[in-house]
Amino acid sequence: MKRNILIIGGGGVARVVAHKCAQNNAVLGDIHIASRTLAKCQAIIESVHEKGSLQRAGTLQAHALDAMDIEATKFLIRATRSQIVINVGSPFLNMSVLAACIETGAAYLDTAIHEDPDKVCEAPPWYGNYEWKRRQACKDARVTAVLGVGFDPGVVNAYARYAMDTHFDSVESIDIIDINAGSHGRYFATNFDPEINFREFVSTAWSWEDNAWKANAMFEHRKDWDMPVTGLSTTYLTGHDELHSMSKNLGVPNIRFWMGFSDHYINVFTVLKNLGLLSEQPVRTARGQEIVPLEVIKAVLPDPASLAPDYTGKTCIGDLIKGHKNGQPQEVLIYNVCDHKTCFEEVGSQAISYTAGVPVVAAAMLIADGTWDIGEMANVEELDPVPFIALMNRMGLVTRIRDAQGDRVVEPEQEEVDTLASSQLLQYG
Amino acid sequence: MKRNILIIGGGGVARVVAHKCAQNNAVLGDIHIASRTLAKCQAIIESVHEKGSLQRAGTLQAHALDAMDIEATKFLIRATRSQIVINVGSPFLNMSVLAACIETGAAYLDTAIHEDPDKVCEAPPWYGNYEWKRRQACKDARVTAVLGVGFDPGVVNAYARYAMDTHFDSVESIDIIDINAGSHGRYFATNFDPEINFREFVSTAWSWEDNAWKANAMFEHRKDWDMPVTGLSTTYLTGHDELHSMSKNLGVPNIRFWMGFSDHYINVFTVLKNLGLLSEQPVRTARGQEIVPLEVIKAVLPDPASLAPDYTGKTCIGDLIKGHKNGQPQEVLIYNVCDHKTCFEEVGSQAISYTAGVPVVAAAMLIADGTWDIGEMANVEELDPVPFIALMNRMGLVTRIRDAQGDRVVEPEQEEVDTLASSQLLQYG
Repeated sequence: MKRNILIIGGGGVARVVAHKCAQNNAVLGDIHIASRTLAKCQAIIESVHEKGSLQRAGTLQAHALDAMDIEATKFLIRATRSQIVINVGSPFLNMSVLAACIETGAAYLDTAIHEDPDKVCEAPPWYGNYEWKRRQACKDARVTAVLGVGFDPGVVNAYARYAMDTHFDSVESIDIIDINAGSHGRYFATNFDPEINFREFVSTAWSWEDNAWKANAMFEHRKDWDMPVTGLSTTYLTGHDELHSMSKNLGVPNIRFWMGFSDHYINVFTVLKNLGLLSEQPVRTARGQEIVPLEVIKAVLPDPASLAPDYTGKTCIGDLIKGHKNGQPQEVLIYNVCDHKTCFEEVGSQAISYTAGVPVVAAAMLIADGTWDIGEMANVEELDPVPFIALMNRMGLVTRIRDAQGDRVVEPEQEEVDTLASSQLLQYG
Repeated sequence: MKRNILIIGGGGVARVVAHKCAQNNAVLGDIHIASRTLAKCQAIIESVHEKGSLQRAGTLQAHALDAMDIEATKFLIRATRSQIVINVGSPFLNMSVLAACIETGAAYLDTAIHEDPDKVCEAPPWYGNYEWKRRQACKDARVTAVLGVGFDPGVVNAYARYAMDTHFDSVESIDIIDINAGSHGRYFATNFDPEINFREFVSTAWSWEDNAWKANAMFEHRKDWDMPVTGLSTTYLTGHDELHSMSKNLGVPNIRFWMGFSDHYINVFTVLKNLGLLSEQPVRTARGQEIVPLEVIKAVLPDPASLAPDYTGKTCIGDLIKGHKNGQPQEVLIYNVCDHKTCFEEVGSQAISYTAGVPVVAAAMLIADGTWDIGEMANVEELDPVPFIALMNRMGLVTRIRDAQGDRVVEPEQEEVDTLASSQLLQYG
């Protein structure tokens, strides 16, 4: 049993995490929020109080922290007696925060893969470049570290695992489909940190095909999907975190990630990219200033958190899985639909932040009660999806399945699970 | 009679000016080139020697100069015994260089209106904000200053004046049409300093209609013209320097400027503008750097001078003038066609630079021989256009007219001129 949460980050996802931790503080204990900018943490705490999100009276405190500073992070973990750290800050911080957890024994959770500010789209599998190098260190220290437990990566990994356990004997392909049919009403904006957002699309789009990595150009492959609620939705094959662990852990020959883009998004992106404005390499102005174009783009675009109040429409994210069951072809879409306005009313963030923040708090609760407290490092598809999906259903992220039998809510504790017992880690390979 | 030229600037236009001065150094005397970056001036001198442009052996020398520094500029004018200064540097320099000329007695020429780095699209007439405030000072010092004597502004002003003198009793409208049907083969580039280029289009597009200023939005008015050589050409109503003097000096009720834009140019421009990337107001990055977005755009775009070697196609710039002659409606297009590749072969610059650089050297020659050495400040339409057009015909910029009588080269010294004698300044108003 673990208690007391340290949230690292001050953006839209951190806001959702704070609200959801507050709604469950009887289980989770004290809640601390730390980011470089204290005011952002204080604003989040104010919002938690305003919405009356605290389940019961308890500690809810803001801290200024540069989480690149491992010693400062260790000090804060110890000072706050935090046993679970939820890292929803910049992906540049992951390895520093993980180090602080390994050295203090706190459990570690994040929602996006580690990135090096100077590199983009490194060689696959991405987890092998950073996180997995600390797997033995986690095991030695008996530290639970669950990587990438937002929606995608995170829930979509659990969806794949759950569907494989319950609906398939063998799986041929998993297509992860991420549609945001919402509208923020601005000329152009990214839904999370533009710097991180664009880094996903500026280089090779890796896909897992016939049990091997395939390098694709961004916007090379387009596919329209008939999705629940959002309807016919245009997507493009995109590189994404979850492929880099699922390809290793699930034994599925084809895993692809498809992200929805409007023509307008692609046009703006194409202009910026072709002009060199998405580069993380500095250029020199006529006045001799050294500047990183991508940082300038980030500075002129709307702060993603500022979009939430006016956001309308829905997201639909899920896995389309094809394979066989009892010798018959089988196709299952397992997905969630989330409404921007409803999210904003509950926690003051839009659905993109909401779908990333709720799962990591669910994971924290499963670590707090021991279910997922495995004392080593894991990606989400290695963990039992049943309690995770069941818990999220109760926390506001409802899972649905669409297959030959129709479209229905998944109640995972009532379905038959074929394979392994819960809380047991899948073997790699 | 005036001799010895100081060229200020080191870009594509300065290169043309240096070549054309060299080709006429028997008249013009010593040639000095000064810019902040000495190496740019040296490269231009090398190019003049390579092409063998010097008419006869003579001084051709590079200098490092910050032309914002009036004392340094005065010193250089005196040290080089320059009696004519050709300012083809940044338009931010105009008032400083003009001050240095007034204080040293040197004649002053430029090709674009003065701009303040912190302001865009100020109240019309633009010349009233800066240049015309020094008119009395020029007169008192008996300093000849010819403003805006590139192609547009410059030649198009002379075209209007010439056509009015020779082909019309009254003029209803002048539409200046600027088409670049060339191709540089890059994704996107501006043909001169991007900072100055974009500043033309980011705010109000002023036009002169019914003897009054009219504020239009950029890209609000589109018009397709059937142009010689370039064919059907799409343009948009654009604010431009020459309207701000011609409206005052010619007594014509309607004067408009139309610039050709491709859909691709407009798309890139629109994206950059809507994102705030064309702003001259600084923004602050997440890392706390203060940067001016427009300076970053300039830094990532190709150096306009680098486009010249691959530039193909032609420009077509001229005035479509409508009015009456002998009680009959009359319509005249007076124009020039220029070929990018031919220009590059002659002087190492493309046609946009060539059409701006040749006229200012022609003007210098008319000052050198006394024809235009009026000892006061003037815009081009106030000066006798006949020797100017005749000289440019011999220097590589041939003027043509298309009217009811057909399409032909203008030989202005052979046409009847109705109105005022040469070297007499038109009265304002």
